[in-house]
Amino acid sequence: MWLNLSSIFKKLSTDPNVRAIVLTGAGDRAFTAGLDVQAASAGPILGPTTGDPARKAFSMRRYILDFQDCITAIEKCEKPVICIIHGIAYGLALDMCLACDIRFSCKTTQFSVKEVDIGIAADIGTLTRLPHSVGNHSWAKEICLSARVFGSDEALTHGLVSRVCEDKKGAVEQGLELARLIASKSPVAVQGTKELINYSRDRPIADGLNYTAIWNGAMLQTQDAKDAMMSGIQKKTATFSKL
Amino acid sequence: MWLNLSSIFKKLSTDPNVRAIVLTGAGDRAFTAGLDVQAASAGPILGPTTGDPARKAFSMRRYILDFQDCITAIEKCEKPVICIIHGIAYGLALDMCLACDIRFSCKTTQFSVKEVDIGIAADIGTLTRLPHSVGNHSWAKEICLSARVFGSDEALTHGLVSRVCEDKKGAVEQGLELARLIASKSPVAVQGTKELINYSRDRPIADGLNYTAIWNGAMLQTQDAKDAMMSGIQKKTATFSKL
Amino acid sequence: MWLNLSSIFKKLSTDPNVRAIVLTGAGDRAFTAGLDVQAASAGPILGPTTGDPARKAFSMRRYILDFQDCITAIEKCEKPVICIIHGIAYGLALDMCLACDIRFSCKTTQFSVKEVDIGIAADIGTLTRLPHSVGNHSWAKEICLSARVFGSDEALTHGLVSRVCEDKKGAVEQGLELARLIASKSPVAVQGTKELINYSRDRPIADGLNYTAIWNGAMLQTQDAKDAMMSGIQKKTATFSKL
Amino acid sequence: MWLNLSSIFKKLSTDPNVRAIVLTGAGDRAFTAGLDVQAASAGPILGPTTGDPARKAFSMRRYILDFQDCITAIEKCEKPVICIIHGIAYGLALDMCLACDIRFSCKTTQFSVKEVDIGIAADIGTLTRLPHSVGNHSWAKEICLSARVFGSDEALTHGLVSRVCEDKKGAVEQGLELARLIASKSPVAVQGTKELINYSRDRPIADGLNYTAIWNGAMLQTQDAKDAMMSGIQKKTATFSKL
Amino acid sequence: MWLNLSSIFKKLSTDPNVRAIVLTGAGDRAFTAGLDVQAASAGPILGPTTGDPARKAFSMRRYILDFQDCITAIEKCEKPVICIIHGIAYGLALDMCLACDIRFSCKTTQFSVKEVDIGIAADIGTLTRLPHSVGNHSWAKEICLSARVFGSDEALTHGLVSRVCEDKKGAVEQGLELARLIASKSPVAVQGTKELINYSRDRPIADGLNYTAIWNGAMLQTQDAKDAMMSGIQKKTATFSKL
Amino acid sequence: MWLNLSSIFKKLSTDPNVRAIVLTGAGDRAFTAGLDVQAASAGPILGPTTGDPARKAFSMRRYILDFQDCITAIEKCEKPVICIIHGIAYGLALDMCLACDIRFSCKTTQFSVKEVDIGIAADIGTLTRLPHSVGNHSWAKEICLSARVFGSDEALTHGLVSRVCEDKKGAVEQGLELARLIASKSPVAVQGTKELINYSRDRPIADGLNYTAIWNGAMLQTQDAKDAMMSGIQKKTATFSKL
Repeated sequence: MWLNLSSIFKKLSTDPNVRAIVLTGAGDRAFTAGLDVQAASAGPILGPTTGDPARKAFSMRRYILDFQDCITAIEKCEKPVICIIHGIAYGLALDMCLACDIRFSCKTTQFSVKEVDIGIAADIGTLTRLPHSVGNHSWAKEICLSARVFGSDEALTHGLVSRVCEDKKGAVEQGLELARLIASKSPVAVQGTKELINYSRDRPIADGLNYTAIWNGAMLQTQDAKDAMMSGIQKKTATFSKL
Repeated sequence: MWLNLSSIFKKLSTDPNVRAIVLTGAGDRAFTAGLDVQAASAGPILGPTTGDPARKAFSMRRYILDFQDCITAIEKCEKPVICIIHGIAYGLALDMCLACDIRFSCKTTQFSVKEVDIGIAADIGTLTRLPHSVGNHSWAKEICLSARVFGSDEALTHGLVSRVCEDKKGAVEQGLELARLIASKSPVAVQGTKELINYSRDRPIADGLNYTAIWNGAMLQTQDAKDAMMSGIQKKTATFSKL
Repeated sequence: MWLNLSSIFKKLSTDPNVRAIVLTGAGDRAFTAGLDVQAASAGPILGPTTGDPARKAFSMRRYILDFQDCITAIEKCEKPVICIIHGIAYGLALDMCLACDIRFSCKTTQFSVKEVDIGIAADIGTLTRLPHSVGNHSWAKEICLSARVFGSDEALTHGLVSRVCEDKKGAVEQGLELARLIASKSPVAVQGTKELINYSRDRPIADGLNYTAIWNGAMLQTQDAKDAMMSGIQKKTATFSKL
Repeated sequence: MWLNLSSIFKKLSTDPNVRAIVLTGAGDRAFTAGLDVQAASAGPILGPTTGDPARKAFSMRRYILDFQDCITAIEKCEKPVICIIHGIAYGLALDMCLACDIRFSCKTTQFSVKEVDIGIAADIGTLTRLPHSVGNHSWAKEICLSARVFGSDEALTHGLVSRVCEDKKGAVEQGLELARLIASKSPVAVQGTKELINYSRDRPIADGLNYTAIWNGAMLQTQDAKDAMMSGIQKKTATFSKL
Repeated sequence: MWLNLSSIFKKLSTDPNVRAIVLTGAGDRAFTAGLDVQAASAGPILGPTTGDPARKAFSMRRYILDFQDCITAIEKCEKPVICIIHGIAYGLALDMCLACDIRFSCKTTQFSVKEVDIGIAADIGTLTRLPHSVGNHSWAKEICLSARVFGSDEALTHGLVSRVCEDKKGAVEQGLELARLIASKSPVAVQGTKELINYSRDRPIADGLNYTAIWNGAMLQTQDAKDAMMSGIQKKTATFSKL
Repeated sequence: MWLNLSSIFKKLSTDPNVRAIVLTGAGDRAFTAGLDVQAASAGPILGPTTGDPARKAFSMRRYILDFQDCITAIEKCEKPVICIIHGIAYGLALDMCLACDIRFSCKTTQFSVKEVDIGIAADIGTLTRLPHSVGNHSWAKEICLSARVFGSDEALTHGLVSRVCEDKKGAVEQGLELARLIASKSPVAVQGTKELINYSRDRPIADGLNYTAIWNGAMLQTQDAKDAMMSGIQKKTATFSKL
């Protein structure tokens, strides 16, 4: 399934018909309840059953890197991804939504960084992306070390989501509305904005500015800038070609 | 105008009579409405009209780097800069206020990272400094990708400003009061504090600590520390010489 | 005293009987009022009284690096550290609590990054760790440059603490309760979670993911994961051996 | 072909029967003469023929990133790769051999970083890896800016290769001999050595040491260390299981 | 003079008539003998004579940063700079030549990192750029810590220069010949090559590759690539327009 | 013994009577033959005998970090360390000499990065410091992956040592002579030079320059600079006070 997710996002990334993506879980009960513990306790997540501990470590490292790559495909997707998190959102739910660009949740969403409860440190992205995504590091460690369930109010207060909606239906509607708004804009501008924020988040200010300068050296040559400016002056709606 | 701004801040940076700076926009209507689109659609922001795309990219990269340098002069200014953001604050308003140290806004301030609406990704600093300035990255991407207007309440909730004042007059007063407070303290301590926070923001903890140690190796030799401590013990007000 | 603090935390770090730590100040009045200015004005913090400025700078740099190392011992302690900040919490209080993992305060806690008031830039960790710990950088600079006292409400709003308790007694109780919860979980999972968040906070996403993969290559081989999963399936409480 | 190369190296990376790899070009004439200019002048390397310059830049960036990934697959291959460079070694030859671990050349090898002669800056890895692979940066820039042909003597003197052999046959023999020697050792030790050097090359000393510590926390648990030590004491040859 | 040097290189950087630069010292005796000690002992290099040590440190830091910027203007110059180092090359000679791209010296050139002999650590670039420019770090420290004079043979062996010429006249001729060769090539390719090597030298491989991809996304759209390829196929000399 | 080595170097680091250090091995036979395999096969290097693989990994990580710290004490020692490597120099010999500043060897020195031969990747510093110390990365990997013995000629050619002496006696003499020369210079200048090179080696050029500026803001205030300049002008020998 994860390889599937990855190949879908790789395809969406360069599909010229796609301008923004809304990601949510099927059904009303859960975004995802995370790992199926029963299945996992037998499966590759705990590694091979033969070999010495070093060989097992190599094997698991390969497995984790592959799994991480699947989730990172969301972050690397050139198009913005809006994540609607509803119902139960445990474990992998956090790994996934933190790789998205924008997070909306519902009044009843129940979050948990559940991994310590199954005896492991989360390794598919939560512990890496969370301290780069929210401002309150005391809270970030509290939820990761305790695995306690928390609601949308905390998620909003401490900066994990930017909007709390009434329910899944409302959240999807707001997500789609935002996606439509983004899709109405120049894809050159939108995709550049995602890339430049992601690049700068990880690097010193000077590096972010320098990368931005060569990026826009190319991107300002787009027809979209002329069309968008003209549409602003003429109070008309511009249409931007695919990317 | 931007070259002018830069040379003013370079001068303020080492002018011994200056201890803190309050920056705001003239008039009541706007901090700045950003780029004058009508002018820009003809001007250098979209690059030269001759040359192949590579030569145009070189030309625009030079232009962007120069423009960024002008805004970065605020960040590099040794003296703290308090920014009062009022009225309309679009586009370059964000680039500018994010290069300042402290941001106050007014109840009626209207912010927008407007650039995607003119078909470009913001390139003068917003996309680089925003993820280093606020804690909620979902919100940061939401406002950059949607270009939607937001008010001071959101700006405060998500960490873009640290104070919302009644109106411009009140905000300037509070800014000046804070500036006077800062100006009453040792400039060695104040300017060191600005530099050490900026340095550490961009680098691993270990590097920040190491830089701090050599910085204060020199700075603790100031007469100000002795005078400030003595003034605390004697309940008198200390006066610190210029820097 | 600081060397003592450091050696205690180094011992706790590898003491197999310890699983979580609650740190607070003795008495009700203060977490710590910071430096004793009277003592400091005579002591090593302002450096030696002989030698040229370069030799003094060397001497003070050595002193600061040693002092920083003492506080960093809290951060490097393998076990999670919950800090209860009550009463007066000035100067070194901030240096110390920012090196802890989780921060709770009380309704009456009074915080101040006091250093500029004694003519120096804080050099034992506050200016380095604060911009990596809270999301609102305008606020972070405001409190560091003004040295103004602020309460738990601001500390919670801007992300310095994750919980405000009624009083010290209540805060210690909540801290101990959280510590007990953490101590009931696999120490392999808990200590890995602390290390991976700290590592990732300082580095690009790609580096955090890569380090996580080799970390868990070893750590998923723990008996704890099997026991924890089985306890979840069987609704029993697992007991995890020491670390 | 490049996608093919990449998938071969991904397969070799985890194929337990493989312990070391020798890479060379078919035939006696050339390792590779680089890009077929005639073909390239029509093909994707110069990008799509439709779209505005920004859309073309997006398209080419995608193409370059994919191409780079193919070559980087050699560097990411867990097994050591010995590269035998013979005959003409222009353009892509440098990109490829710099992604390998060990480089041997022949007396008649002719190297050239040829890209500036076709009007482009090399973008598949040479300009990135060369300054991390050789010590003389004046020479590195001289050969990249001039595109002049140079021989194995210069390559050895300035650190691009570590051995110059008589001819291709001799070089392949020496490469295979070295590969056999490496293959006789513990694959846990060998693959760890490659990974730890690559990791450390790109990062500060402190980070390299830290990563090494957790890596070997797992890897020292290998049976191979015990077997290798015993074989040394008993003067016997150890056999190490696959990885 | 240094401000002058800087403004000259800033002008050369974007002057479309310039494609490559040869830098040497006037006269036969010396590239530069470094600081005029007699003048320096009275001048700004040892800082102001009034103020406490902290204020002096601020003043000198400003002076050093400005001085470094002047020399860094050579490195930031978009056009390649070939440095001919002849005669006496002490102190600032090293700072300057290390900011250039390519270094040629003469049989009689006498180098010395002289600064420790005047009681200071070199601060205008030598200690920063030398470990990024040569491969033998033992040698780099030996010459910096001993201030001993060394000749072109050592400079070539350990990677400080890439060519040793008979005398200044010969070196200038070879420098000009190389400059002419570089000037005959596409300036888009040449200037891109300089920028991409400099960028990659300082950063992890992954960052260098990523920056290269967006750089060439723009630059491959140059007419030069088509002209250069066609000239290769047709065995004609291409002429490239200015940049 | 390693804890001992560390505490000696920590003491030498701040002992005002020490200005330069020559480190070599006792006796004529070996600098060090590395790990005593017989002892090691029973000892802590292969970790504890009880606990699950995760707990063993924690235990070994702690052990490796402590061991690395002992060797890193040489690098962190403020005084320059000249290493004389003679006779057999296997395994830990490389870890140690790479943490020194300057390396001299003898005609008969036999080097080997021996660790892969005992089934492990070197973890006390060799794999981290070697790619930052020599220019030829192909050679660096060749010797680490093959564990083959190599002599001083290769060590000099590829940049591991900067001088090859006739024998241990001669090497020690030359080491002492260099140490005496260094000791005759200003310790402020010498110790600054070591620190600034080490800092810059690991970081981008811009960071190295910035750190240098504040370092020298303090250090140029030394009396030594005035004395050294005056001694140059007056052709007298200056004496510098302790540090």
